[in-house]
Amino acid sequence: MNPPLNPAGNLAGSALLTDLYQLTMLQGYHDSGMEDVAVFEFFVRKLRSGRGFLMAAGLEQSLQFLEGLRFSPDELAWLASTGRFNNGFLAQLETLRFTGDVHAMPEGTVFFPNEPILRVTAPIAQAQLVETRLINLLHFQTLIASKAARMVLVAPDKLLVDFGLRRAHGAEAGLLAARASYLAGFTGTATVQAGMQLGIPLFGTMAHSFVQAHDGEMLAFEHFAHAQPDNVVLLIDTYDTEEGARKVVALAPQLERSGIRIKGVRIDSGNLADHARQVRRILDAGGLQHATIFASGDLDEYLLRDMLASGAPVDGFGIGTRMDTSSDVPYLDCAYKLQEYAGKARRKRSEGKQTWPGRKQVYRSHDADGRMTADVVTLEGDAQPGEPLLVPVMRAGQRHATATLADIRSHAATCLARLPEPLRQLQEPYNYRVEIARALHELAAQVDRNISF
Amino acid sequence: MNPPLNPAGNLAGSALLTDLYQLTMLQGYHDSGMEDVAVFEFFVRKLRSGRGFLMAAGLEQSLQFLEGLRFSPDELAWLASTGRFNNGFLAQLETLRFTGDVHAMPEGTVFFPNEPILRVTAPIAQAQLVETRLINLLHFQTLIASKAARMVLVAPDKLLVDFGLRRAHGAEAGLLAARASYLAGFTGTATVQAGMQLGIPLFGTMAHSFVQAHDGEMLAFEHFAHAQPDNVVLLIDTYDTEEGARKVVALAPQLERSGIRIKGVRIDSGNLADHARQVRRILDAGGLQHATIFASGDLDEYLLRDMLASGAPVDGFGIGTRMDTSSDVPYLDCAYKLQEYAGKARRKRSEGKQTWPGRKQVYRSHDADGRMTADVVTLEGDAQPGEPLLVPVMRAGQRHATATLADIRSHAATCLARLPEPLRQLQEPYNYRVEIARALHELAAQVDRNISF
Repeated sequence: MNPPLNPAGNLAGSALLTDLYQLTMLQGYHDSGMEDVAVFEFFVRKLRSGRGFLMAAGLEQSLQFLEGLRFSPDELAWLASTGRFNNGFLAQLETLRFTGDVHAMPEGTVFFPNEPILRVTAPIAQAQLVETRLINLLHFQTLIASKAARMVLVAPDKLLVDFGLRRAHGAEAGLLAARASYLAGFTGTATVQAGMQLGIPLFGTMAHSFVQAHDGEMLAFEHFAHAQPDNVVLLIDTYDTEEGARKVVALAPQLERSGIRIKGVRIDSGNLADHARQVRRILDAGGLQHATIFASGDLDEYLLRDMLASGAPVDGFGIGTRMDTSSDVPYLDCAYKLQEYAGKARRKRSEGKQTWPGRKQVYRSHDADGRMTADVVTLEGDAQPGEPLLVPVMRAGQRHATATLADIRSHAATCLARLPEPLRQLQEPYNYRVEIARALHELAAQVDRNISF
Repeated sequence: MNPPLNPAGNLAGSALLTDLYQLTMLQGYHDSGMEDVAVFEFFVRKLRSGRGFLMAAGLEQSLQFLEGLRFSPDELAWLASTGRFNNGFLAQLETLRFTGDVHAMPEGTVFFPNEPILRVTAPIAQAQLVETRLINLLHFQTLIASKAARMVLVAPDKLLVDFGLRRAHGAEAGLLAARASYLAGFTGTATVQAGMQLGIPLFGTMAHSFVQAHDGEMLAFEHFAHAQPDNVVLLIDTYDTEEGARKVVALAPQLERSGIRIKGVRIDSGNLADHARQVRRILDAGGLQHATIFASGDLDEYLLRDMLASGAPVDGFGIGTRMDTSSDVPYLDCAYKLQEYAGKARRKRSEGKQTWPGRKQVYRSHDADGRMTADVVTLEGDAQPGEPLLVPVMRAGQRHATATLADIRSHAATCLARLPEPLRQLQEPYNYRVEIARALHELAAQVDRNISF
C-alpha cells in the first residue's frame, strides 16, 4: 500500500470545461435579470442491454469541481476576446462561485433508471454552468464502477487489477477508471499516478519487451527476479507458455539460494484457461504449488465467468481495455435536467425524453435478509417506507465531511451484497421494481396543464 | 474564430502516467546494466468491423509528452516512499529526460493494420517508460479522428460540430475528441476549453433548460435573441417541434424591427428527418427561407447517411456521444512493441500477437488520379515504389517544426480525397492491399531461428 500525497485526487478542472451554450444561456439569464433558484437533477433515462443495475460514482470529483469553480483572469480575458459576451455579464462571471446545495446518493450506491443520483439547488447561472462537467464526471465513473461491479460479482475471491490506462480515453479516464473500479471492489491498479494521487494500491509485473530485450527468456527472468525480489511475477508467454513455465521451475531453486521466492506467473495470450491448467500442472510438479497464476488479455466479466466456471486455476486477473472503455456499453443514456425554477416545477416534454418534474427522493425497501426488494421515486417530503437514498452533501457551497475511498468501497460492497440474487448473477433482463409515486404523476399532470408553450 | 492562448494545447501530463511494470522493468534494466538503444513501434493489429481505414492522430501531444518528460521532486519522493525502488535507480529517474529520435506518419494520414504510425528510437529505459502514455494519446485521438472522418465523408458539405464533452470519458477525452474531430474535418466544437486551449472554432446555441426556466417558450426565444443577437439559433423541440417553428416565424418580424435576424433552429428529438421537412415548410412559408436547420441527438455516420439520402433538409449536425466515445468501436487493437534492441531485431511470438521485427517504413502508391492503390510495409532502407509515409519528427529529444492544426486538417482532407472510392463510401469490408515485403518475412524467419528462448 502506497501513501497517497493527495488522497482526494483533485481533478476538478477549469470552469471552461463547459459547452459554449451554457455561457450563451448564462448571458441570456443575466440580460433578462433571471437570478432565481433552479433545481437540476442527474439521472439515467434507461438501461442498455448488458446492464441490470448501475453503481453511482464520481461524486467526490463533482464536489471538488463545485468547490473550486471560478474563472481565472486568463480565462476571462480570453472570453472577452471572443467578442461574444458583454461587459456586464463578464463582470458577473468574474465573481461567480458555487453557493448552492447538493444532495446525492453516496458513491457506491446501486441505482436504476429515473432515480436521481445528484440534485443541485442553486441560482440558475451556477446550476446551469456546471451541467457539462458534472455530467462528464458522474457519467464516466458511474459507467466504469457499474462495469467493474459486474466483474467483482463473478470473481469475488480473485485478485482483480485495473490494467486499462493505455487504452482508456485519455489520462483522466485512466485515473478515474482506476478509482471507479477500486471503489466497486477491484484490488488495485497498474496506473502509477492513481497510486500517488488517489491512494489506490498498485500492482505490476513485466512486459514482453523486457523478455525480448534479453538474449534469452531465462536471463530476463533472472534479471527481473533480482531487481524485484519481493514481487517476482514472471510473464511466461512471450515465446511458448508451457516452455516458459518449465523455465520458471528450473530457475526457482537457484533463486531460493539467493533468498528469492517466485510469487507467480502471468499469461497474456492464447486460450487462457487451457494454458492455466497446463501451467498449474507444471508448477505443481516442480514444487511451486505456492506460485499463483495471473491472467490478462482482453478480459471482461463474461470471459471471467466462463473461465471460472470451467475450473481454470487462475488466482487473479488484469483487466484493461474492456473495463476502462466499458466496451460493450461505452456510454449511459444520462441527463442533468431542470426540474424546478423560481419555486415552480418544470418539465421537458420532448419526444422520448420527457422528465419527471420537481425535487425528488428515492426510497429503498429491503427484505428480512437485507436484500433489496423495491424502490419508490417520489417528491421530497412525500415520505415512503424504506431508506431515503439521497442525502445532503453540500450546503451553501460548503461540503459536508468527505467520505474516504475506503468508506466508499465498503458501502459499495454492502450494496452489492444486498442485490437481488438474479442481479448478482448478471441475469438480464431482470426488472427490479422502481415505482414512480402517485405524487410525481400528479405533479407532472399539473405542470403539463400549466405550460403556456 | 477565437484566438487561442495556447495553440499547441499542452496536455502532456505527468511521468507517472505509466504502468507500474514500466518502472519495475526499468529497475531491472538499470540493475542489469542494460542501457542500449531500443526501437519501439506503435501500430494497430487489425481493424474491427465498422472500420475500413484509420486516420493517424495524437502525435502533437505525444511529442509534447516526450519533450516535457521528467520526474518532479514530489514524484521522486513518493516513489521512494513506496519502498519498491533502490536509490541508484531513483537517482537515474531524477535525471531521466527523453533524448531519442521519433519517426511518425503526419497526423491526418490514412493508415491500415501492421503499418507503424510512430517509431521511437532511444535508450531502452526512456523508450520503455513512455509506452503507456504514448499508446494512451495515439490510441484515443486515432480512434476519434477515424470515427469523425467517416462522418465527414458522408456529410462533406454540412456544418459538423462536436457536442460530446459531457459523455466523453473525462475532460481530456473531451478536449482531445474536439481536436481529433476537427483535424479530421469537423467544423468546430461546443467545448469552450478546446477553443481557448487548442484554437478550435466554437459553436453553441441553447438548451431545453433555458426554455423550461421561462414561463413560455416565446419569452425564452425573445430573451435569447436579445442576448445573442449575432447567433440566434433557437431550440424548438422542448414541448412541440412544429409549434416551436411557428413561434419562430411569429417572432421574426418583431426581432427584425430590433435589427436581429434569426439564423436558424435546432431540433434534438423525435424523427429528425421528418421534423426537419415539416419545419422547413413552416419556415419557408413564413418567409424564413434563410434560416438553417441544425439537428442533434444520438447521431452517428449511419444516421447522417440515411437522413441525407432521404433528402432531409438539414444544414448542420451536432454530434456528441457516439463520436466522442466511438461507440460502435470504442477501442482499437493497438500496440507499442519492441522491434530492435542493441542493434538486433526482436520479435514477440505470443499466440495471435506475433509482431514483424525491425525498423520499418511504409510506402504508398497512387494512380494517375491521385487515388491510393496499395501500401508496402518493409524495413527502413529497403526502398520501394511510392511515397514513404514515416518521416523524422524528433531528433535527440528536439522536435522538428510543429505542424499547425490547420496544416494537419488540410493534410487529412487530402488523404480522405485520395481514398479508394469504396472506402470513401464506407463500404466494408473492403480490403485495401497492404503488402508485407519480402525483406520483413526474411527478417522474421531469421529472428525466429536465433531466439534462444
